[in-house]
Order: sequence, then C-alpha cells, then structure tokens
Amino acid sequence: MSENILSIDTVSFDEEKKALAIIDQTKLPGKVEILHLTRQEDIFEAIRLLRVRGAPAIGVAAAIGVYLAALDIGEKDYGGFYARFKKAKEYLDSSRPTAVNLSWALNRMERVVLAHKGENPAAIKKFLHDEALDIRDEDVRVCRAIGENGLSLVSDGDGILTHCNAGQLAAVKYGTALAPVHLGRERGMNFRVFCDETRPLLQGARLSAFEMAAAGVDTTVICDNMAGVVMKNGWVNACFVGCDRVAANGDTANKIGTSCVAILAKHYGIPFYVCAPTSTIDMSVKEGKDIVIEERGAEEVTEMWYRERMAPDAVKVFNPAFDVTDNSLITAIVTEFGVARAPYAECFRNMGDFSRFPAENALFQSGEKSTLK
Amino acid sequence: MSENILSIDTVSFDEEKKALAIIDQTKLPGKVEILHLTRQEDIFEAIRLLRVRGAPAIGVAAAIGVYLAALDIGEKDYGGFYARFKKAKEYLDSSRPTAVNLSWALNRMERVVLAHKGENPAAIKKFLHDEALDIRDEDVRVCRAIGENGLSLVSDGDGILTHCNAGQLAAVKYGTALAPVHLGRERGMNFRVFCDETRPLLQGARLSAFEMAAAGVDTTVICDNMAGVVMKNGWVNACFVGCDRVAANGDTANKIGTSCVAILAKHYGIPFYVCAPTSTIDMSVKEGKDIVIEERGAEEVTEMWYRERMAPDAVKVFNPAFDVTDNSLITAIVTEFGVARAPYAECFRNMGDFSRFPAENALFQSGEKSTLK
Repeated sequence: MSENILSIDTVSFDEEKKALAIIDQTKLPGKVEILHLTRQEDIFEAIRLLRVRGAPAIGVAAAIGVYLAALDIGEKDYGGFYARFKKAKEYLDSSRPTAVNLSWALNRMERVVLAHKGENPAAIKKFLHDEALDIRDEDVRVCRAIGENGLSLVSDGDGILTHCNAGQLAAVKYGTALAPVHLGRERGMNFRVFCDETRPLLQGARLSAFEMAAAGVDTTVICDNMAGVVMKNGWVNACFVGCDRVAANGDTANKIGTSCVAILAKHYGIPFYVCAPTSTIDMSVKEGKDIVIEERGAEEVTEMWYRERMAPDAVKVFNPAFDVTDNSLITAIVTEFGVARAPYAECFRNMGDFSRFPAENALFQSGEKSTLK
Repeated sequence: MSENILSIDTVSFDEEKKALAIIDQTKLPGKVEILHLTRQEDIFEAIRLLRVRGAPAIGVAAAIGVYLAALDIGEKDYGGFYARFKKAKEYLDSSRPTAVNLSWALNRMERVVLAHKGENPAAIKKFLHDEALDIRDEDVRVCRAIGENGLSLVSDGDGILTHCNAGQLAAVKYGTALAPVHLGRERGMNFRVFCDETRPLLQGARLSAFEMAAAGVDTTVICDNMAGVVMKNGWVNACFVGCDRVAANGDTANKIGTSCVAILAKHYGIPFYVCAPTSTIDMSVKEGKDIVIEERGAEEVTEMWYRERMAPDAVKVFNPAFDVTDNSLITAIVTEFGVARAPYAECFRNMGDFSRFPAENALFQSGEKSTLK
C-alpha cells in the first residue's frame, strides 16, 4: 500500500459518484481508506475530525464540498439558490477556525455565484464545478512551485527536520513543506528527513513519515522533545514547516509546537523555512496575535489512541491546535512566487508576478490589489 | 487512591517480607500497585523497565537491592562473600547507564563491605541493612532541603512548568524538582503547575500530574510541544526540572526534552532551575558531552501504550532517553546545600557545608575532597 500512496490524490472529485474523495487520514498509517462523501454534514465532519486536514487540502475539500451542497439545492430562482448556497458556505466555513484556505476557497466559490447574479442556478452549478476543479489544479501547480523555490535552499544529502504534516497528504499533491523533498526525489536527490511525531495527533509519525517512506526517503521519527538533540548533533541543515495562516507582518500560525522548533533552530543557528501558498497569506490580519487559535478537546491529549486514560482525571488539559511563530524567528517564507524574507509585509507586496494566478491570490481578495505591484 | 499516594513511600524496605517495596510506576495513574521484590533479577528488571525510576529512587532501590542480594549469599568467608557481592553490585549497576545515583548508592554499599574487610559476612549484612536504610532516610532529608532552597526562588501563586517527573515518585518523598511545590503546599501556598506530558513514556502526564493533583495543586497537562505557548502566554514564572547527572561544569543530563525547555525558557526570559541532590553531581565528568546517554527501544516511540503502531514500518526511530542542557541555559542548580549559580565548578566547591553528609557526597567520592573547601 505505502508504495502507492503517492499516486493517489489526497483530495479529489469523483465525477461518476458526484462525491468528494479523500484518503481518510485518521486511519493512516495502518490503513489506506478512500472515503466518498456527498452530504455537507459528512464533509463538515471530515474536516472537523481531521479525516482531511492540512490547509491546502481543507481548501480544496471545502470547494468541492460547497459545490456538492449547491448540487443539492432545488431552488430554481437565483435568490433562493444564493440564500441556500450562502448558508452551506457558512456552515462549512465554521468547521475549523485557523486555516485561512478554508474561507479563501469558499469565498472564491461564492464569488462565482455572485458573478452570475440573476442567472439560472443550473448554469451556475456548472461554473461552480469548474471553479472547484480549478482550485484543485492550482493547488498542484502552486505546491510544485513552492517545491521548486524550496529546493533552491537545500543541497543534495541535507538533513531536513519537519513538524506535523505539510506534505502531499496536506494538499492534493507535493504538499508545501515537503514539496522540496518530493521534487528533489523526482530528480534523484537524497535527503535525510526527521519527522517530529507532533503530539497530540501524531501527524508527523503517522503521515509525514508515511509519505516520506513511500517516496523512498531516509526517514527518522522522533518525539517532539527530541528535536533539540537532533539539531545539537548537527544532523539538521534546515527546518521546513507549513502554515495555516500568515499575518501581513510575516507572523505565522501553524501546528502547535512549530514556534518551539523555530526557537530551537534559532538557538542552534539552523535556517527555519515556512512554506506558504500565497492563499495562506492574510493581509487583513496585521500580526500573529490577531490570528484565532483553535483549541481542541482534552481527550486528544489524555486518551487519543491509548488503551486507557494516560492522565489523572483531576487535572486540566490545555490543547491549542496551533501556535504563532514570530516573524523574527523565520529565516524565509517560501511561496509559489518566490522566497520572501523580512521585512515580510514589504516583501509580500513586491514579491513577484502576482498576476500569474490572479483569481486565487489572497492578496487580491483582501482589497489590496492596488498596492501589490 | 490518588488522595493517598503521597502517604506511600515510592521506595521502601519491607522488614517483614525482607523485600524491596515499590509503587509500580508503569501502572500509574490507572492503578496504584505495590510490588514486593526480593530477587536481584526482578529488581534489575524493575529498574530497567522503569517500574521504579527517577535518579534518587533508583539509587535507593539499588541500595536495598544489593543488600537483598547480599542476604542470599551463603559464603561464610569474607573473600567468597565479597566476590559474590561485587558481582551483584555490578549486575544492578548495569541496569541503566545515565543516572549517577545508581552507581553512587552501590558504591556506598560496597564501601561498607570494604570497611569491614575480613569480618564475618553475617555481621556485614547487618551493616549493609543499616546503610541501605540510611541512604533512604538521607534521600528524604536531602529532598526536603532541596524543596526548602527551591521555595526561596518562587512566590505564592506562581506558575511553574516541569518536565518529566522529578517529584515524590522519583524519590522516596518530596522529590527534587517538585519538592518546592510539595513543601509550599504543606505551608498553604498555591501554585499553578504545568506538566509537560514527556514523550515517549509520559512521566509528566502519568506521574507528575498524578502527584500534583494528589497534593491539591492546580495542575495542567500539556504536550511537550505546547511548552512554548504556555510560556509565551505569560503563565510560567519558573521552570523546575530534575536531573540524572551533573557534570563538573554544570552541564546537566536529564530526561529527553529538558534542553528544549531550557532554550524556550531562555528565549522567553523565564528562570530555569535544575534541582539536584549533590549525589547527582559527578565531578569526574568534565562536560555534558562526556555523559553517556541511554538510547532506548524504537517501540517506546512507535507503539508504547497504543492500540496499534503509530508510525510506518519503513522508518527509523531515534529515541535517546536523556539530553544534556548546557550550563549557559541554567539559571541555577538547586541542591540540598544551597542554590548554585555559574560558574558552577567553582560554586560546587564552595557551596557550603559538605561535611554535613560526608559519606554520601559524590564530590568526596571522586577523590576531590582536598579541593572542596
């Protein structure tokens, strides 16, 4: 199974079944199970329960999800259709709070409906279908470009440390943080990758290690608290992580523990790279402290995957799903357009050819188009 | 059960059963089970499998263990007795490599045998009995003194972060890192304690949280990778950790991840205190890099306590049980004689009244007595 995982898209649209097809990531690495989901409640649950996770993958799943919700709308008039579409969009948007791609993708889908104001819902559904598939296709192109840019920062044989999973399993293909490794492998390069297991849900041990091993990479799983030793031993040339939302100043929200990796990397003088599609950059959020951080259930820490409860009943649990890494700890932010360095706000504005993918660019959507060029 | 745990000594000698009595720490927090062990093989296994763990507790268990081994020696002549005693001592000494207390306690027991060279083994066994119980009693006094000294560094209401378990469950009573909290509780003080769960074996979630809750402390369990956020949120006034071996320059080996906590604390400007009985100071080891670090089995990371394997088969695992925290990251080392600050080597030599417990002081054993005063 594990040899084939890379040939399966993490998120796709099954035309025949009219269904969102996802690899159920809660079953990995034990079992590769494809789920076909059609009901918006099931898609909401799949996002909330992390059956599909990773900022880019969530965006694509939500886009396909809201298209499927639109298919179910019987209203023949635009007003009635739009009202129900809007409700479905807001419902899916509420499944998780931190990753901006979720609302980014859903906003893109809504704009399609708005662009065809007053038209026949049947025709609009066709446009929504195409937009969802465009979002999916663009994700592959964007991730590949991030891989290309990230690859310019490493050398054959390097040791790379990653946290959580921002790989192919977090996107449609390639991923973000692991895209340089996948792309390098395609070109015969070898890396030694250290995967932080990433408590509480072990996306590093379960998912990153799984896809790295499938790609034939020399892969070592470590507990999160071993990252310091691995760095101290001189085994890490660069850290690559993904992100769920980048503030205008370059502060970055990503999986809990990312900021600790960044602080350790700074201490040991190791470059720390955040890989971010520009759809993840949210110019409407000034600083990291303004990003809403999802807090998840205590049982993820005390019970998830264990035979028995591992902490006494009498104690509290703090379980934030993400943390914010200050821009001062980030060596560079790798986007599909190039490698951004501090000062980030300026860099984001001047980074390059934003007209390449104008429709999906978050910078345009936040009304800042005039300042971008 | 959990209300009474603090009234049970973690390690004790059952005179009636002539047995080492320990709380089986692999069963906590689910079950409080007392094991009575008499055979040296069982005591070796109990140490190796972490049924009894924590540097001070291991020392006491080994002292009682080698006494029990001596009881079983039938030889009536000193030479034959000593040869078999020595073998038992070396066997127990090989159960774990990093904590210096193990060999420290066993060396103390051996010195009793050597001090009575040529005497009747039956009489020597009586001296060994008393020495083992002295080691146990001194552990309680030493931990209490560490608690007293540590308490001088915090204020009522403080937030304290701890890693692994260096509490009562790692000693006979009070513990080292958690001794200030226990002593403070006895005096009606309140603290808010954050317990790093401490992967892979979760001593923080299972043991520290358990004894803190039993002491009525406001206790919060976090995954190791959440320590940074908790510090960033301003919830931590001080970090307290234990240690397994302190080098002459103050570099400190302790549970894996401790050095990461120290780096985070330094980044956020939070004092980082190592609590160390002077028996843990090994003046024969110059720097931290000379301390032997135990590496344990991969299955602790990939399978321990899980229903199924959590990492793919194809990957490697790196599982060091300890790491070394550089002295530059340590605000102070809290011993039973006082609070040591850098430069540590000098401070260790001038710290105070080492003659208080001359027999068990590691500094004397390494032949550096003349330089100590």
